[in-house]
Amino acid sequence: MQFTTLPGFRDFYPDLCSRKVHIFDTWRKSAQSFNFLEYDAPILEPLDLYIEKSGSEITGQLFNFQDRGDRSVALRPELTPSLARMVGAKANSLKRPIKWFNIGENFRYERPQKGRLRSFYQFNADIFGESGPAADAELISLLGNTLQAFGLKDSDFTIRLSDRDIWLLILSSEGIHGADATLVLGIIDKMERSDRSQSIKLLSGVLNNGAEDFMIMIEKIMSIRDFASLRDLLLNLKLDSVRAEQAKLRISQWDDLLSLLSNTCVSNSLQIDLSIVRGLAYYTGFVFEAFESGGKGRALAGGGRYDSLVQKLGGPEMPATGFAMGDVTLSNLLEDSDLLDDICVKSPDFIVIIAASDISNEALKDTTMLRSLGYSVEYPLKLSSVSKQLKEANRVGATIALIYGTENQISNNVIVRDLKNKVEHVFARELLSELPKDWLANGITAK
Amino acid sequence: MQFTTLPGFRDFYPDLCSRKVHIFDTWRKSAQSFNFLEYDAPILEPLDLYIEKSGSEITGQLFNFQDRGDRSVALRPELTPSLARMVGAKANSLKRPIKWFNIGENFRYERPQKGRLRSFYQFNADIFGESGPAADAELISLLGNTLQAFGLKDSDFTIRLSDRDIWLLILSSEGIHGADATLVLGIIDKMERSDRSQSIKLLSGVLNNGAEDFMIMIEKIMSIRDFASLRDLLLNLKLDSVRAEQAKLRISQWDDLLSLLSNTCVSNSLQIDLSIVRGLAYYTGFVFEAFESGGKGRALAGGGRYDSLVQKLGGPEMPATGFAMGDVTLSNLLEDSDLLDDICVKSPDFIVIIAASDISNEALKDTTMLRSLGYSVEYPLKLSSVSKQLKEANRVGATIALIYGTENQISNNVIVRDLKNKVEHVFARELLSELPKDWLANGITAK
Repeated sequence: MQFTTLPGFRDFYPDLCSRKVHIFDTWRKSAQSFNFLEYDAPILEPLDLYIEKSGSEITGQLFNFQDRGDRSVALRPELTPSLARMVGAKANSLKRPIKWFNIGENFRYERPQKGRLRSFYQFNADIFGESGPAADAELISLLGNTLQAFGLKDSDFTIRLSDRDIWLLILSSEGIHGADATLVLGIIDKMERSDRSQSIKLLSGVLNNGAEDFMIMIEKIMSIRDFASLRDLLLNLKLDSVRAEQAKLRISQWDDLLSLLSNTCVSNSLQIDLSIVRGLAYYTGFVFEAFESGGKGRALAGGGRYDSLVQKLGGPEMPATGFAMGDVTLSNLLEDSDLLDDICVKSPDFIVIIAASDISNEALKDTTMLRSLGYSVEYPLKLSSVSKQLKEANRVGATIALIYGTENQISNNVIVRDLKNKVEHVFARELLSELPKDWLANGITAK
Repeated sequence: MQFTTLPGFRDFYPDLCSRKVHIFDTWRKSAQSFNFLEYDAPILEPLDLYIEKSGSEITGQLFNFQDRGDRSVALRPELTPSLARMVGAKANSLKRPIKWFNIGENFRYERPQKGRLRSFYQFNADIFGESGPAADAELISLLGNTLQAFGLKDSDFTIRLSDRDIWLLILSSEGIHGADATLVLGIIDKMERSDRSQSIKLLSGVLNNGAEDFMIMIEKIMSIRDFASLRDLLLNLKLDSVRAEQAKLRISQWDDLLSLLSNTCVSNSLQIDLSIVRGLAYYTGFVFEAFESGGKGRALAGGGRYDSLVQKLGGPEMPATGFAMGDVTLSNLLEDSDLLDDICVKSPDFIVIIAASDISNEALKDTTMLRSLGYSVEYPLKLSSVSKQLKEANRVGATIALIYGTENQISNNVIVRDLKNKVEHVFARELLSELPKDWLANGITAK
C-alpha cells in the first residue's frame, strides 16, 4: 500500500525542516527582544469557540468533527480565540500589560494554492490591557523588527496602516451605522481583489441609493497617503458633536502613533492606507497589514485592535491588539530574496574515524564524553576504510575529524584533523575534554 | 458564553510554556549532539496509514473523522508511520545511515489520567539503513544522554533491555510460531500490569495445554538480569539447526551491543529484562524502555527495532530502529526531582525608565537600536512615576535599567543602573551600541 501526504499538508525533510526551524528561531528571538512571553494553546478546541467569534459561516473553512465523546470540535483556524479565552480566564491574576507570543500550527480547509495551504504555521504576538497607541506602536515595530531580522531591508516591505474607527466615523457621517456599517466594511475589505462594478453592486445592496457616488468617495479616501490629508478628511466630516469630539481625539491618537513609530525600525516602511480594513468583524481600531514592497503576493502579516473579543468570549472588558505572520507567504518572499540560501542542516562539530577496530572502545568513550559536554559528534555505525570515512566526513561537513588507531599511534593519543584547513596534529586523548572549544573557534594550530 | 479547554488538552500559560520550551530545547540539543537531523511530518494523516500499521483496532483510540473532501483522516497517535512513509518515499536518494529526530504533538482518545493526556508531545529519534547493533547502541545511548541532559543521574533511571528475537526463539523451541507467537508476546507484554491467573487464562487460550508450566518458565526467563544466564538460556533451547545458528548469532549480537553500551553514558543504567516486549506487533529485534529507578510511573521512553515497517507501508526493505520519549511522564519525574524549579519565563536584559516624557523619543530610538542588536528590552507603554517604574523593573527581573530624563541629565546621556548590584553610572547614549555586552556579562563598573 502506498501512502501520500494529504493535500495542503507538508512533509518536512531535514533540508526544509532546517528552514522551518530558522523561521521559528527568528520569530522567537524577535519577540523576546521586545520582552514578549511565550505561551501555547491547544490545537483542538470546541467548535463553538470559533462560531462565537466569527459566526457559523466559519465552519465552511474548518476541519471540524464530533469526537468520541460526541463533542463538536475543530482544529484551530487561528489562535486568537484560544488566546482571548486564556487571558479572560486569568484576567485578574495576570500583570498588565500582558505581552505574549506564540508559534504554532493552524488549519483551514481551503483550496491549496500559492501562499495558501491547509496546514500552516503562524507567529502570533498580542498585547492585552493597554488601550493607548503605545501598544499598537509596540506591535507594529515588532512586526517590522521581525521582518528585518530575516535580513529584509525596510524598503523590501510596506506596512499599510489603517483605522476601523475612522471608517466608522466616515460611514456615520453618511448615515450608515451598526450592521450596515459592518456590511460596508466587508465590501471595502474585498475591493482590492474585486471588480469595481461588482463592488458598486454590493454597495447598492446596503445603501438606498447613490452607490456610484459613494464608491467615488471611498476611492478618494483609500488613496490618502499622508497624515495631513487624513486630518483634513476627519475635520470636514459632517458629524454630531459627540462624534466630532471622537474625530478630534482620533486625530491626536494618530499623531501619537505616527510619532512613536517614527522612532522605531518601521519609520521607512509605513504607509497610511485606508483600503486595509481587515475582513473580520471583531477589529475595533488601528489595523495594519504588511506586504512585499512591490505589492506581490498575499499579506505577510496582519493585525489590529480587538478591544471587545475577550469580553465576547466570556472574560472581562480587556483592550487588546495583536498580529499574526504566516510561514508560507513569508517563506516565498525570503526565497525570492535569496535569504534562505544559506539555511541548511547543521553539520557536526566532530566526526570520529576509526582506523583499527581494537581502539573503537576508546573512540566511543571519547565520543560519549564530548557529547555529554554538548558537542555534536558523528560516530561510525559500521567499519569501513579510512579513506571512505574521510570522504563521509567531508560529505557531512564536520569541522574536525578525530582519527583513532592509525599506524604508530598509541591508544592514549588521537589525531585531530581540521577538515577545512587540512592540518592535523596528534594530541593526548585526555586533552579532549579541554581543547575542543578552542579548536572549533580557531582551528587546529600548534599543540 | 464561557469556554474551557477540551479534556486531556492543556493551556500553556507562560510559566508552564517555559518548561515546555526547556524540555524541547534539551531534546533538540541532545539529538544534535549525536548528529541526528530534525524533520517534521503532518499532524493529520490518512486513517489507513495507522490501520495498515497497527490494525483496525487502533481506531478506538484515535481522533479520526471524514474531512470536507470525504477523506478518512486521523490526528496522528504516533509519528512512526509518517516517518516510515517519508523515508520509504525517498529511500533511494537519502544517504544512509539516516539519523533523524522530531519533536511534535500526538493525540490519543483515552481516559485522561496521571501520565496520560489526549494531547502530548514526543521526542522521536530513529536510525534507518543500519541493521547491526551499533545503531541500537547509538539510540540507547542517545536516550540516556537525553535523560542526563535534564540533570538526572544515571542512577535515577533504568533502561530495561529486551529482545523480540530471543522470545521468538524461545517460543519456537516450545512449538509456538507465527500468529500464535504474536498472541503470546501480546500476553507477556501485559503481564506486568495484569493478574497472574488472568495471564494463565489468556495463555491457555493459545496453548493446547500446560499454560501453568509455561507461565512458570516465562517468569523464570523474565527474572534473568545477567548476560551469562541469557546466553545459557539460548544455548540450551531445543532448536532445529537453522534456529540454533540464529541463537548463536544472537548471542554474539548481544555481546556486541552490551560491549558498545559499556562505553557510553548508559553503562550504569542498563538492565537486561525480558519482561519488556513492547505491545505493538511490528517490533522485530532489540526493544527497550526507560523507567524511573524506583519503578514508579509509566515508561519515560520506549523503542526498538522495526525492520519490516518501511516495506509494509510501501517502501523498500529498510532496517530501522527508534524510540519515543513523551513529555508528560518525563515532566512528572523532573518535577519530583526538583529539576524544573529554576525554569521560568525569561527576564529582559534591559528595562527603559522614563522620568520626563520630553525625552521619550530618545529612549525609544535607543530601545529600537538595542532590540535590533538582539537584546531584550522592555519599554514602558504608559507613563508612570520613576519609583513605580523601578518597582516594575524588579518585578520583571530586568538585569539593567536605562533611566532617561532625570534631573541634571542632558538628552545625550542615560543613567545605566545595574539592578542586581544596585550601582549606576551616567553614560553617553552613543555608547549604548557598544557596551551592553560587557554590562550584561560583568555588571556596571567604572566608565
